[in-house]
Amino acid sequence: MTRTKAIVFDLYGTLYDVHSVVQQCEAFYPGRGMQLSVMWRQKQLEYTWLRSLMGQYISFEQATHDALVYSCRHLKLDLDTATCDTLCKAYLNLSAYPEVPDALQRLNDMGLPLAILSNGSDFSIQSVVTSSGLQDNFSHLLSVERVGVFKPDPRVYTLACQALELTADEILFVSSNAWDASGARHFGFNVCWINRHDNTFDELGATPHVVVAGLDELPALIDAGRC
Amino acid sequence: MTRTKAIVFDLYGTLYDVHSVVQQCEAFYPGRGMQLSVMWRQKQLEYTWLRSLMGQYISFEQATHDALVYSCRHLKLDLDTATCDTLCKAYLNLSAYPEVPDALQRLNDMGLPLAILSNGSDFSIQSVVTSSGLQDNFSHLLSVERVGVFKPDPRVYTLACQALELTADEILFVSSNAWDASGARHFGFNVCWINRHDNTFDELGATPHVVVAGLDELPALIDAGRC
Repeated sequence: MTRTKAIVFDLYGTLYDVHSVVQQCEAFYPGRGMQLSVMWRQKQLEYTWLRSLMGQYISFEQATHDALVYSCRHLKLDLDTATCDTLCKAYLNLSAYPEVPDALQRLNDMGLPLAILSNGSDFSIQSVVTSSGLQDNFSHLLSVERVGVFKPDPRVYTLACQALELTADEILFVSSNAWDASGARHFGFNVCWINRHDNTFDELGATPHVVVAGLDELPALIDAGRC
Repeated sequence: MTRTKAIVFDLYGTLYDVHSVVQQCEAFYPGRGMQLSVMWRQKQLEYTWLRSLMGQYISFEQATHDALVYSCRHLKLDLDTATCDTLCKAYLNLSAYPEVPDALQRLNDMGLPLAILSNGSDFSIQSVVTSSGLQDNFSHLLSVERVGVFKPDPRVYTLACQALELTADEILFVSSNAWDASGARHFGFNVCWINRHDNTFDELGATPHVVVAGLDELPALIDAGRC
């Protein structure tokens, strides 16, 4: 394994908790917040995959909106325009996982360039990173917008090599999403899967190089030359 | 709308009930059959989409196998090789929905060529159609194998135009899968969505031309020039 020269992070579900929107869902739909939040996230992902395959790219914000509309219709929850706007805006203001700020600082102290490569639009990535105060940690914020297709299309992962001027095997890609980690591995990145919730890795013909339960475990693994 | 010159059907979930495997799941895992069957189907679809996007095509049988392995691991159900083989083989011997044989006969009597366009391999499609005794209804059995990518990639839908020597708008595409119906609509087919179970149509920027609760409603709609 080539020694890591930069680290590229997925954003949604990896550095930031997408279910931090659950509280707002719960406020609008008491007792249904978790159910709505889980279906919304599942459909949001499906819509990015399906739109990519159809050659019908839309922004991540639009996919998020469409997935919310579907989920509310399916769950028979009333969704007026104001509620829809408020819930979609919650995706611009997600909470970082608790261990993330310190871990990013330690990785920065090791002299490694850090980047985000996300399905989100430039505007969304900027909003999430700025609202959480973590913007100074990253040398690059990279959006799929530039290629008009979502992960795990290899054209997305190529963006990181271009921006960092590194080959795939010089980059450590970090994601909590098993399908994203699988796509990144097929692409040629070294891959770290963050498995915070005892999930099952997908059977997509690829396995991560390392698995951690939180980002705070990563600096020591890099120090030890494990990735 | 151009008058329909041929009808192209999706197979899994449209003409044949994918949850007809639930009984075999239940026999191996009492009380867990439905849960396993639903997750297996969901993951099977996800794996076809993700493999397509990654440029890592595998056969539908392999995706079915991988989705079963994932689902059993995730649900903590023991899966030995013999059980795995038996359950995967259930996908070669699915039940047609009850109204399907008569409806196909009536559509045939109207002089319309009927075809299947499926994610399944040639072998799988042939097995399912033959084991149900419906093979004489179809002029073409078309598999994604020929293009090495799954629906809803437009290259798949193109196969039907090529085989039938018709333009997209001369073909009526029939599917129960809202994502498939959406992809077919974006491609340019006329589209009939079969909604047997009061499902919610997906928000993928396309709506079907007609919606029916079963295939038996289709001949009258065609007679009336509705599709």
